[in-house]
Amino acid sequence: MKRTLAQVSLALLLAPLAATGDEGMWRPRQLPELAGELRALGLQIDPVSLSDLTDHPMNAVISLGGCTASFVSPDGLAVTNHHCAYGALQYNSTEEANLMRDGFLAPDRPAERPAGPGSRILVTVEVTDVTDRIAGAVPADAGGRARYQAIEDEQKALVAGCEQDAGHRCAVRAYHGGLEYELIKQLEIKDVRLVYAPAAAIGIFGGEVDNWMWPRHTGDWAFYRAYVSPQGEPAEYAPENVPYRPRHALTVSRRGLGAGDLVMVVGYPGTTSRYRLASEVESQFEWDYPERRRMFEEWRRTLTDAAPEGSDAAIKYGTLMRGLDNAIKNYDGMISGYARTGVLSRKRALQESLRGWIEADAERRARYLSTLEELDALIAESVGNRERDLFYSYLARRGEALRTATTLYRLSRERQKPDLEREPGYQERDLERLKERLTRMERTYDPAVDRAFWRNFILRYAGIPADQHVAAFDAWFGIDKNRVDEGELDARLESMYAGTGLGDTATRLAWMDRSPAEIEASEDPFLRLAVALYDSDLRLEEEAKALEGRYEEVRPRYMAAVIAYLESLGRPIYPDANGTLRVTYGTIEGYRPRDGVRYEPFTTLDGIVEKHTGEDPFDATEAQLALIAAKTYGDSFDETLGSVPVNFLSTVDTTGGNSGSATLNSRGELVGLLFDGNWESIISDWDFSQERTRSIHVDSRYMLWAMEFLDGAGHLLEEMGLGSD
Amino acid sequence: MKRTLAQVSLALLLAPLAATGDEGMWRPRQLPELAGELRALGLQIDPVSLSDLTDHPMNAVISLGGCTASFVSPDGLAVTNHHCAYGALQYNSTEEANLMRDGFLAPDRPAERPAGPGSRILVTVEVTDVTDRIAGAVPADAGGRARYQAIEDEQKALVAGCEQDAGHRCAVRAYHGGLEYELIKQLEIKDVRLVYAPAAAIGIFGGEVDNWMWPRHTGDWAFYRAYVSPQGEPAEYAPENVPYRPRHALTVSRRGLGAGDLVMVVGYPGTTSRYRLASEVESQFEWDYPERRRMFEEWRRTLTDAAPEGSDAAIKYGTLMRGLDNAIKNYDGMISGYARTGVLSRKRALQESLRGWIEADAERRARYLSTLEELDALIAESVGNRERDLFYSYLARRGEALRTATTLYRLSRERQKPDLEREPGYQERDLERLKERLTRMERTYDPAVDRAFWRNFILRYAGIPADQHVAAFDAWFGIDKNRVDEGELDARLESMYAGTGLGDTATRLAWMDRSPAEIEASEDPFLRLAVALYDSDLRLEEEAKALEGRYEEVRPRYMAAVIAYLESLGRPIYPDANGTLRVTYGTIEGYRPRDGVRYEPFTTLDGIVEKHTGEDPFDATEAQLALIAAKTYGDSFDETLGSVPVNFLSTVDTTGGNSGSATLNSRGELVGLLFDGNWESIISDWDFSQERTRSIHVDSRYMLWAMEFLDGAGHLLEEMGLGSD
Repeated sequence: MKRTLAQVSLALLLAPLAATGDEGMWRPRQLPELAGELRALGLQIDPVSLSDLTDHPMNAVISLGGCTASFVSPDGLAVTNHHCAYGALQYNSTEEANLMRDGFLAPDRPAERPAGPGSRILVTVEVTDVTDRIAGAVPADAGGRARYQAIEDEQKALVAGCEQDAGHRCAVRAYHGGLEYELIKQLEIKDVRLVYAPAAAIGIFGGEVDNWMWPRHTGDWAFYRAYVSPQGEPAEYAPENVPYRPRHALTVSRRGLGAGDLVMVVGYPGTTSRYRLASEVESQFEWDYPERRRMFEEWRRTLTDAAPEGSDAAIKYGTLMRGLDNAIKNYDGMISGYARTGVLSRKRALQESLRGWIEADAERRARYLSTLEELDALIAESVGNRERDLFYSYLARRGEALRTATTLYRLSRERQKPDLEREPGYQERDLERLKERLTRMERTYDPAVDRAFWRNFILRYAGIPADQHVAAFDAWFGIDKNRVDEGELDARLESMYAGTGLGDTATRLAWMDRSPAEIEASEDPFLRLAVALYDSDLRLEEEAKALEGRYEEVRPRYMAAVIAYLESLGRPIYPDANGTLRVTYGTIEGYRPRDGVRYEPFTTLDGIVEKHTGEDPFDATEAQLALIAAKTYGDSFDETLGSVPVNFLSTVDTTGGNSGSATLNSRGELVGLLFDGNWESIISDWDFSQERTRSIHVDSRYMLWAMEFLDGAGHLLEEMGLGSD
Repeated sequence: MKRTLAQVSLALLLAPLAATGDEGMWRPRQLPELAGELRALGLQIDPVSLSDLTDHPMNAVISLGGCTASFVSPDGLAVTNHHCAYGALQYNSTEEANLMRDGFLAPDRPAERPAGPGSRILVTVEVTDVTDRIAGAVPADAGGRARYQAIEDEQKALVAGCEQDAGHRCAVRAYHGGLEYELIKQLEIKDVRLVYAPAAAIGIFGGEVDNWMWPRHTGDWAFYRAYVSPQGEPAEYAPENVPYRPRHALTVSRRGLGAGDLVMVVGYPGTTSRYRLASEVESQFEWDYPERRRMFEEWRRTLTDAAPEGSDAAIKYGTLMRGLDNAIKNYDGMISGYARTGVLSRKRALQESLRGWIEADAERRARYLSTLEELDALIAESVGNRERDLFYSYLARRGEALRTATTLYRLSRERQKPDLEREPGYQERDLERLKERLTRMERTYDPAVDRAFWRNFILRYAGIPADQHVAAFDAWFGIDKNRVDEGELDARLESMYAGTGLGDTATRLAWMDRSPAEIEASEDPFLRLAVALYDSDLRLEEEAKALEGRYEEVRPRYMAAVIAYLESLGRPIYPDANGTLRVTYGTIEGYRPRDGVRYEPFTTLDGIVEKHTGEDPFDATEAQLALIAAKTYGDSFDETLGSVPVNFLSTVDTTGGNSGSATLNSRGELVGLLFDGNWESIISDWDFSQERTRSIHVDSRYMLWAMEFLDGAGHLLEEMGLGSD
């Protein structure tokens, strides 16, 4: 269940490393230079085709914003992971019809259901290098704050120009910490519908227990369909909309594949931190992850208490709960990987060898040497406020009531400015998404639950060093240094949640159109708190932007040194993941997780029977068990395995955001879906290991088997050109 | 840590199965008929030599009573498992010198320490078939009770005759439920001394967590030495005693071995139940194991509460605690294996095919058909009292205070009879062992602890169906049907434990010489209880003997049918384990524990580093970690593995009692020690699986490595002929 973007916004910090073996999330344009290796691994299509975004297969690969999907029919049918469609299943679930548990299959197109507000399909149509535009916009002697603003302003201008083309969404993405910038233009399809997802017994078989684990037996697939207006333009949901017809769709393979075979994954990996400095790694692993882990444990506990299983609230918080489970396990993996792999000493050694290389040459000394100290000094500065940065940010942003109030007041203030001068997120182009978010909240907000965990965030915040406290917040709750009167706090929370109208969707949306003065006059306690915090929050934001501007000056120079050094070693360089379309390739391979144990690269239906206990999360359906007992394998039978393959391991380099990515064989056909990494891969966001980092895929043969024999999805198989013949 | 006899007296019940593949605990005399297969597997010595108890290597293999050991030097040095010598480490431990934790090495012979009262080394010198003698002693029309007595009397007579040869210990063992009997004669060496055992950090590395598990990294070895009188006769411990010189000793190999190689294990497996009926299997797995498991959990809990870690009492109860841990895990393995392997339906199917074979032929019908019903009826009768049989027996025998009192009073009564008419265990030949047991109790008895768990046994007993209660016991504690007044119970226990003198060794031993009248006149509350229970306990014993006598009539007839049937299928037949010397052979092989996972047959030093946490039971010593980090491998390096092998898996068929057995290579040299089975092997006492049943061995190369580099045991290496050259 990893590999969605949500869980990976955890990553923040730096350390030198370079591509060896199957490491590398390559930009499509780099593929021609890797052609030799790809051909040696058995690639049968032209490697150059992988660099052309308008051609097959790249054009069929789409983003869901946090996940990846692929078109698999000319009628806009798209396949992704079950866990990427979980929000849509949640949105369409009621206490009577629990789609999260039972799955969903639309027998025909009219039965396909809106995936929920904010669901999007994004097709990358153009990528333009805008490094010079950004660089040219920054005054030569700009300080941090001015640099930050200059870059942001230029980005906004580029985006605004790009979005003149209706139906598109644009973004500027930095590579190598700002050494390069690209303007990414994506077609934005807004009418996304849920077509099919298997029952939880297949789609999340193994649940949190098996998450990140091998051997794995999860049927992590789901199908959406993209709809557009009858004129073929992106449009909001409307009954008369028609299926989008993509230029290309992937062919789903029944051919199968085996150990050692080449596989490629095309997708939108979110964030990696492969080039971070040792000091950043140290702070992240020795302070940040352990602290977050503790806090998330508490968050989960308050959530379990306040929204017990089976309650209506539990459905509302299902996605958050799963996200917390996933994040906690992720932190465990990070922390244990850090202890096991010696990443810190390796980062230090690489940094030392980089320094040695720089010092060995006068020109390099002049150009790069000061960069190392400058960057380390900036990192030390950041670390100085890490308690506040962590705990106040959760307090301010993860209590839904306060966050809504803060957003509404900020919106009213930003709206006073010309559009291009507004803070990103509050521009006209953002308002629709904002409205969707505020609407969707009715499915994910329960005041008693929100209060329960927000209360805990307040107590955690109160415990941080007093000199990092936010005076305006302390004043509101009567926090005196680290002292909180919990009785008073509870009384205050009681009256705030009782007194706020923000839990009501109509009220919430109505506030979107109000002026600052109207909000300042409101009696709503959360709006009043938002107003009270506004000035100091803005000051903190200004400080953070100034610091970020300084990073934007130093980090590119540092990365230029790293790149020059690694190129001198003859290693190809790929940039850290940044949510843009990437290609990674490798082979199907098991690994040795520990002394005396070898993990084989494929699992089979037999493993489902072995794991089945009859209790969640190992509760296979009677129907599935009967099919397996009867050895009903159909075309999905694999002779080597003696059964139907379920999941497989590969050496491809992926991370959150890659979820749902098509796994392609040497012909560019879909043979599986990437949906997770192994336990040892969790730390690979910082440090890739050829021996132990593995991606986990669901085999397309399992998907086709379940669609045919279990879920009666023959009409979808037909649509994909896989009808029985 | 399995494979000692203590834990396996759990087994009680029946079902047909026969040897296939590497299954089979062969009687030495069967080996010549298996010569072809052994040679095909690579045996380089004469298979016939394995059937000669007086020749190498059989003569070097000895019993410790519950464990196996082997002579490895001409001076009586014997190697066995660390867990087989644990009692000796416990016996020699004090709060100042914790040998259980720190291990022990005698720098020279005078420093070798008595292994503790009751420690014995038994060398099998003669095995005689006495089937006809036993059969001839039973009157043709004997009922159950008479049959039981006739068999017991004849056994006692045979034993008495055999033990005329001073320094020997004899026993009659039944095969196939009494179809055959053998008289086993063993030289009994009574002066056994502790020579060397590694620290717990090696000897029980992984502890209970890793017990029954693979991959494994346990250095489960220890060394004893056998001492005899200066005249060369078995003798009690005396400083002037000299090392025993065995006729043969095993050669310890440095040669090493690899996957697929032939290995053999010679040893004293305790009990298996491979030929039990389906109804016995069902009662055992669906009632007995789950009930015992629950009771043992409670026992462990009361023990942990009453003898907390670090206390003097904790040392006293260390062995019991480890035994309970082991047994509970064993029950878990049994219960999960039963659920997983479908043993019951397989036993039923085999029984049906046996019935079909019998019914197909008139002579077979006449000879065997009634046997099946008769045996099933007996089993049903046994099951009818299973609550009392289980819970009252724990109550009567596992509270040490009551057990001692019962033993002493029974002894006084038995002593009224001529020696040959006494109950086994109370004959003159038994008194020395009895005295040792009553002496050793000072190291294993704490009244507060005994009381804590005995109290729990009483409560458990009180809960069984009232019609199975023992009236005399109920009367003593005022138990009324299932009602116990816990306040009264505690007051009674308080006064009993306060009033008894049996906690004092001198007092305890003095009672051994008293008459029944003297004991009946005693005020000691436990002796009074023993007297009060005597008549009804004896009645229960009489009933049990009568039932057993009926089994002794029916079971051999049933087994004759099974053997005839299996022979008709061309399968060689081995008898269930019964504590006699057996040979098993197989190959070094990993296995697939579950879908997607393969266990490799060897582990290495690297795995110790991986598992090391610094906390018990994964707390390797600094010295060991430093040696591994420095890649100090010496002659123990294995090129294929790239390190020193630690443990390995084989397909040989072993059970409790085999612990400490030498693992021999194709030349009959010692290449390791059997010390455990894998998780999937736990149920193999009932049902062997060629695919998943594996034995776990410590590789001799690891032992030699630790002796040389870590423990400074060079003088022992020299003695074994492995000095550096």
